[in-house]
Amino acid sequence: MVPHLITALKGPLLDLERRFLQATPAIERWLRMEWQEHTPPFYCSVGLRNAGFKLAPVEADLFPGAFDQLSDSTLPLAVQAAMAAIEKYCPDARNLLLVPDRRRREPGYFASIHRLAAILRQTGLNVRFGSPDPAIVSPLRIALPDGSALLLEPLRRQGRRVGLTDFDPCSILLNDDLATGAPAVLADLHEQVLLPPLHAGWPVRRRSQHAAAYREVAKRFAKMLEIDPWLISPQHGLCERADLTTRAGEDSVAGAVDSLLRQTRAKYREYGIQSAPFVVLRPDAGDAPSLPLTVRDTGEVRRLPARERERLSPDGPAPLLLQEGVPTVETLGSATAEPVVYLIDRYVVGGFYRVHGEGGAQAPSAAAEPHHVPLPFATSCHLPDCDADPDLAQNRFYAYGVVARLAMLAAAIELEKTDPDQSLYG
Amino acid sequence: MVPHLITALKGPLLDLERRFLQATPAIERWLRMEWQEHTPPFYCSVGLRNAGFKLAPVEADLFPGAFDQLSDSTLPLAVQAAMAAIEKYCPDARNLLLVPDRRRREPGYFASIHRLAAILRQTGLNVRFGSPDPAIVSPLRIALPDGSALLLEPLRRQGRRVGLTDFDPCSILLNDDLATGAPAVLADLHEQVLLPPLHAGWPVRRRSQHAAAYREVAKRFAKMLEIDPWLISPQHGLCERADLTTRAGEDSVAGAVDSLLRQTRAKYREYGIQSAPFVVLRPDAGDAPSLPLTVRDTGEVRRLPARERERLSPDGPAPLLLQEGVPTVETLGSATAEPVVYLIDRYVVGGFYRVHGEGGAQAPSAAAEPHHVPLPFATSCHLPDCDADPDLAQNRFYAYGVVARLAMLAAAIELEKTDPDQSLYG
Repeated sequence: MVPHLITALKGPLLDLERRFLQATPAIERWLRMEWQEHTPPFYCSVGLRNAGFKLAPVEADLFPGAFDQLSDSTLPLAVQAAMAAIEKYCPDARNLLLVPDRRRREPGYFASIHRLAAILRQTGLNVRFGSPDPAIVSPLRIALPDGSALLLEPLRRQGRRVGLTDFDPCSILLNDDLATGAPAVLADLHEQVLLPPLHAGWPVRRRSQHAAAYREVAKRFAKMLEIDPWLISPQHGLCERADLTTRAGEDSVAGAVDSLLRQTRAKYREYGIQSAPFVVLRPDAGDAPSLPLTVRDTGEVRRLPARERERLSPDGPAPLLLQEGVPTVETLGSATAEPVVYLIDRYVVGGFYRVHGEGGAQAPSAAAEPHHVPLPFATSCHLPDCDADPDLAQNRFYAYGVVARLAMLAAAIELEKTDPDQSLYG
Repeated sequence: MVPHLITALKGPLLDLERRFLQATPAIERWLRMEWQEHTPPFYCSVGLRNAGFKLAPVEADLFPGAFDQLSDSTLPLAVQAAMAAIEKYCPDARNLLLVPDRRRREPGYFASIHRLAAILRQTGLNVRFGSPDPAIVSPLRIALPDGSALLLEPLRRQGRRVGLTDFDPCSILLNDDLATGAPAVLADLHEQVLLPPLHAGWPVRRRSQHAAAYREVAKRFAKMLEIDPWLISPQHGLCERADLTTRAGEDSVAGAVDSLLRQTRAKYREYGIQSAPFVVLRPDAGDAPSLPLTVRDTGEVRRLPARERERLSPDGPAPLLLQEGVPTVETLGSATAEPVVYLIDRYVVGGFYRVHGEGGAQAPSAAAEPHHVPLPFATSCHLPDCDADPDLAQNRFYAYGVVARLAMLAAAIELEKTDPDQSLYG
C-alpha cells in the first residue's frame, strides 16, 4: 500500500480506485502469495495511464533511468527496498558494479546513475561504474549537472568473474537495456549475480511476451477481485513480420489495427464510453522510439509518412506490437500528465509524472519534449487508512501502486518464461 | 543506513560517528550476515545516549508505545518494514489481532495503538483490538485524542486458536509487556503467530539477559570495526537479590555500585574524560519506573529515601540491574534530549527525542515530565552519501541507527536464549 503519492487527478475517486481501496486486505494478501512464487526483477519503472474508466500499465522498463527525478522524500523507501533485495541475492555483498547504458552520455542520464548509486551506497555497498564499451580503455571522468563527476571504468574479465581494476563485485547491476547486444564480457557469469539477468535485455525480451504475461496476471487478479480484467489491462495484438514499406505489409498492419479497434469499440460500447478508441504501435523489441505511434483508424496506417514507417522497423520486417491506446484524464495545468511508478524488488519506492506540454486526453503522443514532475508523498497529518474515507486525496495513489506491482509481477513471470535455464522452474 | 534522521547535536561529527560512516560497507555487510542467523523481534524501540565520547543503548523496549510520536514522513518506511515482517511470519495473513497493554487506558497510549494499527492496515491487514482483561466482556469504545475512537473487544479462545467474535487472526501482535503476567487465553498457541513471543514479556525477560546479549554483540561488532566495545556499550552489574530495606542489602548494592564506578572511572581515565561517572539502577525485570534511579557514589545509595528504595523492589528482594550511566550531550534549547529509535523487523523506521524539561548532561533523571519531539528525515536536497563529507548533518544519524540495530540484534539473541523451546536453535 506504500507509498501514497500525490496524483494530479482531482475530484472524487473513480469506481476502480474505490474498489481497490475497499479490497486492500485481499489485494495485499494476493500479492504476498504471488511473491512467494515469483521473484521480481531488481528494479522496474512502470508507465501507467488512468483513463477514468480504466487504469492500465503501458510499458514496463526493466532498466529504468530518471532516478534523479524521484522525490527526495521517497528515497529512504528506495534504500530500504534495495536492502531487502541485496539481502536476498547476495547477503555477504561488499561491492556492487553498476553498468550504465553504453549508448547514453548525456549529463541527465548520469544524474540518474549517480542517484541510483547513492541509493545503493546507502545500503552499505561500495559502488563503482563499469563500461563494456571497448572504446573505454582507461577511467573516464563524466561530469554531472550538479558540478560533481563520476568515474566510468573499463570492465575487466578475469576467468569466471568480471570487475574493475582492484574491484571484485558480488553483484552487477545492469542499467543498459542491451539494445545493441549483450557484450561478451558479461556472458557466462556464474559466480556473480547479474541483475537483472541478460535475458531481460532487448536481444531476448519482447514487449508481446510481457503483454501476454500481464494479461494472465490481470486475469487472475481480476478474478480474485471480481472485476473485468479489461479495466486494468490494454488489449493487444502482434504483427509477427510487419513491413510498412510494402503494400502487403501495410495491409497486414491495417488489418490488425482494425481488429484491435473493433475489440476496443465493443468494450467501449459495453461501458458506454463515447470517445473514439485508438491503437498504439511499438516495435516488439528494442529501445522504443520516445514517442510511440498512435493511429485511430486504418486510414491513418495507410497515410503514415515514410519517416514514421522507418522508425517502426528500421532494419526491415520486424515484429510490431499493437496495444489498445489508453487515454489519460490526468493533467497538470493544461498538459497531459502520465504517471510513472518506480519499484525496487516488490516495493513501490516512488514515481513522477511525465508531463507533455501540449494536447489533452486523446493526444498522449504530443510532439513537445516531456518533462518530469516528482510525485511526493501525501503530506496529510494522518496516515491514509482503509477505514477512512476513500475519497481522501492520499488514498488515490493506492490503485497506481497496485497496477504497477501487477506489471512487476508480469515482468517476473516473463523473465521466468524466457530464462534460457528452464531447469530452475521445473 | 536508513533513515537519516535529524539529530539535536550540532557541530562536527564525533570520532565514533565518523568511524561508523567510513566503515559503512563493512557495517552493513556485518549486519546483513547477522540477520541471516538471527530473526529480529517484530518491533522494538531503543533508547540511546550520546555522550560525545561514547554512544550506547540504555533500554530496548520489546513492546514499544508512542508510535503516534513518530514523524509522519517516516511512516511509509514503517509500512514497508511491516510488510517485510508479515511476509516472513504469515504470507497468507488477512487478519491481525492487536493486543494493547491491559494496564493502560490513557488516550495518549491509545493514540499510539491507533497509529500502529494504521501502519499495519497499510500493509493490507484487517486489524482489530482484543483484550485479555476478564473485566471486558463486551466491545468497549475507547475515545482517542483526535475525537475518533477504537473498539476494544474481549478475546475469545476457541480450542487451539484465539480471536474475537467473527474474527480469526493469523497473527497476534502483543503490545502488552505482560508485567502483570501472561494471560491464560494466550497460552499454547501453536497455529497462530504470536509477535513477539510470550517469553519476550516480563514474566520471563530480564534486563541483565539483554545486557549480556548486547555485550556479546558489541564485542563482536567492535572487533570487526577495530574499536573498543566500551565506546558502544554501558558496563553493567547485577545484584541477584537486592533488598534496600535492610542494612546488609544496602551494603551489597553499595558494593556493586562502587565496583561499577571503579570500572567506569578506569575507562574515563583511559580516555581522558573529566566528568564524574554515575550508575543507573533499574529493576532487572518488570515495567521500569519512568525515571531510573541515578547514583554517583555509595553514599547516595545509603542516603536513598525510603520511597526510592520501595520503587526499586516493591515486592521484597528482587534482582537489580546496575548500568554504567551514559551522559547525554544532546540538548534541545536548554533541555536534555534523549534519542529513541524505532525498529520494525531489521529496519530503522523512525524515532523521536524524549526531551527533559530541566537539567543538563549530567542530570538525565530530572523530575519534570518528558515530552517528545519527532525526528524527521533530513531534508537536504541530496541523499547523504558515504563519499560525501561525513560532517553533513544528514549523515549524523547513521551511527544511531547502527547502535539501535545492534540492540535489536541483542534482543533477537536474548529471545533465542530464553525461548522455552530450545529445539528450534539446535
